[in-house]
Amino acid sequence: MSSNLEREILEQPAVWRRLLEVERPVIERVAATIRSRAPRYVMIAARGSSDNAARYGQYLFGAANRLPVALATPSLFTLYNAPPRLEEALVLGISQSGRSPDIVTVLVEAQRQGALTVALTNDPDSPLAAAAEQVIHLRAGREQSIAATKTYTASLFALALLSTALAEDEARRQALEALPDVAAEALAAAPAVARAAERYRFMEACVVVGRGYNYATAFEIALKLKELAYVLAEPYSSADFRHGPVALVEQGFPVFAVVPEGQAAAELSAFLRQLREREAELVVISDRDDVLALAQTSLPLPSGVPEWLSPLVAVVPGQLFALALTLAKGFDPDHPRGLRKVTLTH
Amino acid sequence: MSSNLEREILEQPAVWRRLLEVERPVIERVAATIRSRAPRYVMIAARGSSDNAARYGQYLFGAANRLPVALATPSLFTLYNAPPRLEEALVLGISQSGRSPDIVTVLVEAQRQGALTVALTNDPDSPLAAAAEQVIHLRAGREQSIAATKTYTASLFALALLSTALAEDEARRQALEALPDVAAEALAAAPAVARAAERYRFMEACVVVGRGYNYATAFEIALKLKELAYVLAEPYSSADFRHGPVALVEQGFPVFAVVPEGQAAAELSAFLRQLREREAELVVISDRDDVLALAQTSLPLPSGVPEWLSPLVAVVPGQLFALALTLAKGFDPDHPRGLRKVTLTH
Repeated sequence: MSSNLEREILEQPAVWRRLLEVERPVIERVAATIRSRAPRYVMIAARGSSDNAARYGQYLFGAANRLPVALATPSLFTLYNAPPRLEEALVLGISQSGRSPDIVTVLVEAQRQGALTVALTNDPDSPLAAAAEQVIHLRAGREQSIAATKTYTASLFALALLSTALAEDEARRQALEALPDVAAEALAAAPAVARAAERYRFMEACVVVGRGYNYATAFEIALKLKELAYVLAEPYSSADFRHGPVALVEQGFPVFAVVPEGQAAAELSAFLRQLREREAELVVISDRDDVLALAQTSLPLPSGVPEWLSPLVAVVPGQLFALALTLAKGFDPDHPRGLRKVTLTH
Repeated sequence: MSSNLEREILEQPAVWRRLLEVERPVIERVAATIRSRAPRYVMIAARGSSDNAARYGQYLFGAANRLPVALATPSLFTLYNAPPRLEEALVLGISQSGRSPDIVTVLVEAQRQGALTVALTNDPDSPLAAAAEQVIHLRAGREQSIAATKTYTASLFALALLSTALAEDEARRQALEALPDVAAEALAAAPAVARAAERYRFMEACVVVGRGYNYATAFEIALKLKELAYVLAEPYSSADFRHGPVALVEQGFPVFAVVPEGQAAAELSAFLRQLREREAELVVISDRDDVLALAQTSLPLPSGVPEWLSPLVAVVPGQLFALALTLAKGFDPDHPRGLRKVTLTH
């Protein structure tokens, strides 16, 4: 009865251990090359879940490595044939399949211009890997489910390893090593998450808010809710949400919030208090009891995870919730309508 | 009976003429300074509608000036106190009020690091203007409506003037001069747009797609539908939409599409044909008869606008539609619930 999706969600700690054990030396060498070339900024090209991993990269490389990060606009390279100058950039392409034609095009052009290019992919024989100077293998094993889960967190984990290697930060290295066990703890909550999802059987639309490092998590949970459970789930930073879209919130409107302990928690919890006053329905993912207490539905996180790594763990209850909601709605989690594993966008 | 919102939508061509006549010399001087400092890339800090203007800037500066553009992540500067290195950047802050604290913080830090900073604001006495080395005044006159319209297109127009001055491109200069008259033509369609909006009186959710230059337009139209008509409207590039969210589309699901003539039109119109097969309800903004013919509701655009300027004109039917839908639903366009003109995000 179990789905590929469920199996792949549960595999995540094992994938991260494989990255620590097998891929870390490769990533250390890539970091040494990056240090020697001293790029001025990073450009990341990605689509779908990989683009959400790129969003994590914006905060990670910005805060830990002081590198500004631009998300690529692939149509400048493909439709308009007018790519920007990238000589001084580090250009990362993230794609589990390594076969998204527009992402490959960005890497080919960056390589042609003499930028330092790195592919993060689950297929080291893919066109993306062939286009890049350096390759990081995500080592997630084949992902059979159309909705990405283990390749998403493998991308986050690989980015975290790369940033840590660049910073040569021993404390961060140790925090990464502890993470697979913490994720296993989050996965153990699966039965409780499944019970909690029942209440949302008839939910058709919602908003998912996160901020800072977990802006990415809000995007990724929203994407799972859309592609698996066909819920119109829109991701937002709480800051952007206040600039207009908050007008949407009326009594009973469902808002999911990702609020792990850290620098973003105070602002987010104040925002949740405002949404409570407007009688929103709150689903909160957090390791803070005071924040969970604001919610109709609380999805607790293991405590003690540093904020910069929290997106790896905070997405897990979201993945489990999307799976449970998909089943509660009577849909097939392994075969979302209208989707294929490799999307050939140009 | 007419609202501030309607009045301000209609003022747009006059605002653009003012930018051409009064602000162009200032913008030419800013461009000369930028050329002399030769930044490696651009970072733009903005929220809400101004952030949608920033999205336009990504394509504009990328294609016309070969400058990569990163959208700033203000929380790195505020919540995390870990700003990236910006010495070689051109940092633009866009804010009609010039009072969004997090946007001001980004400019202050960029200035401190020695980056070249430029404020685009409708208030030259604002903190944002004070923080920047160079100031471009949007000259939109006071915007009384909470939902931004004339300051949004004033920001686009100012960015287009700046990019054109940087490129020293005479043909582009002439295209800009012709634009106010074209916009007046688009505004003349207001009664037809109002009739078309009736059909959507009970629409609660939709998706708005655009690509390339008009990715920004999709975001801005979606934001107007959300903040004014309380429709859960999610913006997408057609490329990203294929990577997952397309699963949402079932019979009757409303999809708005922005498809002006240009490099993005072929891909978008193929995508609309696929959505037709899935029996989506299509609302299409276009100057191409073959693309309009795919729609249940067609919102024609004046023809002959070059694609790089099309976002200025293509947003107009979207603004008019959002206004008409707001009135059809019985809401007050001048007082969206839960919003204030200046949003104090940190």
